[in-house]
Amino acid sequence: MEKLSIEDMAVFCKRKGFAYPNSEIYGGISGFWDFGHLGVELKNNIKREWWKFHVNDREDIVGMDGSIITHPRVWEASGHVESFEDVMLTCSKCKERIRADHFIEDKLKISVEGLDSKEIDKLVNKNKLKCPKCGSSFEDIKDFNLMFKTNVGPREDKTSVSYLRPETAQLIFVDFKLVVENARLKLPFGIAQIGKAFRNEISPRDFLFRSREFEQMEIEYFVHPDQTDKCPYVKEVMSKELNFYTEEMQQKNKKPIRMKVKDALNKKLVSEWHAYWLATEQKWFTDLGANPDNFRIRQHLKKEKSHYALDTWDLEYNFPFGWKELQGFSNRTDFDLKQHIKFSGKDLSIFDEETKKKIVPHVVAEPSLGVERAFLVFMFDAYTYDKKRGNVVLRLHPRLAPMTVAVFPLVSNKPQIVKKAKEVRDGLKKYFNVFYDQGGSIGRRYARQDEIGTTLCITVDFDSVEGSDVTIRERDTTKQVRVKIKDICHKIWEYMEGAQFEKLGKKIR
Amino acid sequence: MEKLSIEDMAVFCKRKGFAYPNSEIYGGISGFWDFGHLGVELKNNIKREWWKFHVNDREDIVGMDGSIITHPRVWEASGHVESFEDVMLTCSKCKERIRADHFIEDKLKISVEGLDSKEIDKLVNKNKLKCPKCGSSFEDIKDFNLMFKTNVGPREDKTSVSYLRPETAQLIFVDFKLVVENARLKLPFGIAQIGKAFRNEISPRDFLFRSREFEQMEIEYFVHPDQTDKCPYVKEVMSKELNFYTEEMQQKNKKPIRMKVKDALNKKLVSEWHAYWLATEQKWFTDLGANPDNFRIRQHLKKEKSHYALDTWDLEYNFPFGWKELQGFSNRTDFDLKQHIKFSGKDLSIFDEETKKKIVPHVVAEPSLGVERAFLVFMFDAYTYDKKRGNVVLRLHPRLAPMTVAVFPLVSNKPQIVKKAKEVRDGLKKYFNVFYDQGGSIGRRYARQDEIGTTLCITVDFDSVEGSDVTIRERDTTKQVRVKIKDICHKIWEYMEGAQFEKLGKKIR
Repeated sequence: MEKLSIEDMAVFCKRKGFAYPNSEIYGGISGFWDFGHLGVELKNNIKREWWKFHVNDREDIVGMDGSIITHPRVWEASGHVESFEDVMLTCSKCKERIRADHFIEDKLKISVEGLDSKEIDKLVNKNKLKCPKCGSSFEDIKDFNLMFKTNVGPREDKTSVSYLRPETAQLIFVDFKLVVENARLKLPFGIAQIGKAFRNEISPRDFLFRSREFEQMEIEYFVHPDQTDKCPYVKEVMSKELNFYTEEMQQKNKKPIRMKVKDALNKKLVSEWHAYWLATEQKWFTDLGANPDNFRIRQHLKKEKSHYALDTWDLEYNFPFGWKELQGFSNRTDFDLKQHIKFSGKDLSIFDEETKKKIVPHVVAEPSLGVERAFLVFMFDAYTYDKKRGNVVLRLHPRLAPMTVAVFPLVSNKPQIVKKAKEVRDGLKKYFNVFYDQGGSIGRRYARQDEIGTTLCITVDFDSVEGSDVTIRERDTTKQVRVKIKDICHKIWEYMEGAQFEKLGKKIR
Repeated sequence: MEKLSIEDMAVFCKRKGFAYPNSEIYGGISGFWDFGHLGVELKNNIKREWWKFHVNDREDIVGMDGSIITHPRVWEASGHVESFEDVMLTCSKCKERIRADHFIEDKLKISVEGLDSKEIDKLVNKNKLKCPKCGSSFEDIKDFNLMFKTNVGPREDKTSVSYLRPETAQLIFVDFKLVVENARLKLPFGIAQIGKAFRNEISPRDFLFRSREFEQMEIEYFVHPDQTDKCPYVKEVMSKELNFYTEEMQQKNKKPIRMKVKDALNKKLVSEWHAYWLATEQKWFTDLGANPDNFRIRQHLKKEKSHYALDTWDLEYNFPFGWKELQGFSNRTDFDLKQHIKFSGKDLSIFDEETKKKIVPHVVAEPSLGVERAFLVFMFDAYTYDKKRGNVVLRLHPRLAPMTVAVFPLVSNKPQIVKKAKEVRDGLKKYFNVFYDQGGSIGRRYARQDEIGTTLCITVDFDSVEGSDVTIRERDTTKQVRVKIKDICHKIWEYMEGAQFEKLGKKIR
């Protein structure tokens, strides 16, 4: 099936209550999005599943939650004040400002990754690029810092300037010592965080993909400086297949190659830690229903790496607007901790029980994922149009679907049936997200639930009142089984844990 | 037992990994706090329980999630640009700036609620108040707007000014029409939201209680303009007892009176909607283990009411620094929706199926609670020092405790016991937050878990390896029962759902 365009996905999300432009009644504000009554549930489910998989289910990772506004020195130490910039073009006439790299890439169909502002300026002049709005030439090129600035406290001057965090990562480094000591962590370990971050993008685009306000789910994973080559968990992912796209393949215009982690390690295409984290993160997506064919892992070219990174791989997804980064896995070395040691004058090293020396751990990978990008991945892979049914079916994983169950009385004009249906609903509500609907034909009600991804539909009919059983219908197959009312809760639980639908009850269709 | 002071609570929270000052290695930044590895779990549990109670368990409330930065017109319409201000005193010599009302209340021990800046100025002059830092006199009094300002987009000028939201409420009003239509809501209904809000407090204080960045859990509850007196759910709370502190009691210097909602309604002390929401919100706290004796409901005095409110009640908690607001319940009428209709020119009315007319619903209550204030309430009511045990016991409700279970091998030098203990841990991890600890004596390990509120401790001993059972110990009583390993998961589940500890297994202590 052809993939929905990003614009059509935005329309679908708005129409069904998943996401819409912020403050639309005031004409909107570019780069900001709100989540509707279903979108907020999907987003909460994504965050809960991420936290459970990465923090609660593991022994080596703990969480924390830092504030959005923090001390401005944090961003001096991290390098953001000096160099978290995009190159900006300003029209000499209409003063329109646009992001240079995207503009050139769109116009000339070439990549400008890694070029500095002078090189970009040359490209603009050489190709005689003009303002897309009024056709005039551009002013001298400028660097534009992407951090949102504000003033903290009652004085509005230079001394009170602070920033909205452009990433969650630095909060982890700043609180590193406190978390390590409180949680008595032993290397290797990770510290995880979910929270909002802000980037004043010159030109936000692609719906939720590149917005100015977004939410990150991030881990900084720390290892002993002598152990950056050895990952004790790599065994777990050896047999996993990934779609490798190395720097060499890109330079030689080759296609990505699907191979086992084991083979990639033998060929030394990737480090053990990168292999482990890339495979683990792709597993998180595919365990929750994403299609593995839509993922690849791409090594950064030398010129595109960040100032702090030794080697970086991106987990990429095949969006309708191309392969794009979901997560960047930088080997940040000890860059950040050392910067904060330098700028704060505080000792952030930890004691190595083996060598009795103080060490500054290395960050071998920082699995960092935008909640909104995960949201899009799951929506794109779930969205299907079912010709036979004549409606959209949103095949979200049962643990992600905004509603787990819908309960319908077969008819709305028989009080016993309505009463029984409400009893069924009330019995389930404590444990699952339940939607109750008594409006319209059963077919119409099924279609409505299919479109919003509700996993199971329960119909209460005349026999339910007599025989105390109901019909449960599976969204993905439209198969139906008959189940005793007293067993429903337990049966749904089993289904959520992976049990086959047909085994839940007596098959009736 | 005497309550911990707020300062001692801050020390405890930092020492145990619940919360600490943001960017402490850079000297901190006043009014911003980070949550540690246990604090983030407690905070997540609070938010999850709130959402479940208010959204998922109800038929009449749906959620949404709006952005922090929004269109600046939103804050013009809401009145925040013009009047979300505190009165500020500036020292004529050292230029220290302080919040006038708190300063006067601390110095003169009187309330200045509702006084305007001129009246406050008079008080300062009359009482010859001086700068607390250098002793000089103050400059002319000024109003200070509490919204954090920033610039959105590549231009940094007046046209790009926007604000960090000072409350979540307005996002609900702005998205009102979209949510109502998408979720097909029928009056009365509520729209709920959890998210960060920011207030540039002149002088933040009292640890997490008054910070510059905080998180709100909020409902705007909408009713038909003709039904603002009648709450269909009031029956549910009739027999609940609340500690009423009406405007009259305050004016006559009387004490609050504990009475049933039924009696208060008969005496017309409170409206049905206020009674319903106040009782419901107090129930949320007490169901999760808060002490009802520490709550009272206080009616706002006429002079302290916000510009939009018809009648306001606060749910207050007895903090160590006095009775303070947890939640304000304003009857906001149709003020906000009408303002947004006026400023946006958009029709935000909804169709009344009965009268076939278009109506603008009234907000009868907006249960709005700071996550951090709830955090403090649960921590204060949970914190106890157990003299017999000689350690702190943090009696958090099982659904709030950062860790549900701790698993210990009795000794760490017997491989079979360690192996079995890890098996027990792995079996539980999928369903609960589990902490594994094999360091130090069992007594020491119990004490460590008591201090962080872990609900149950499981010890795996020699008999566990032979007989496949373990000892489970209850935090609050130190009682112990013996349970089969295969039953543990199920038994803990029952306990979390309210089952008595003694009934989980064979009593051994």
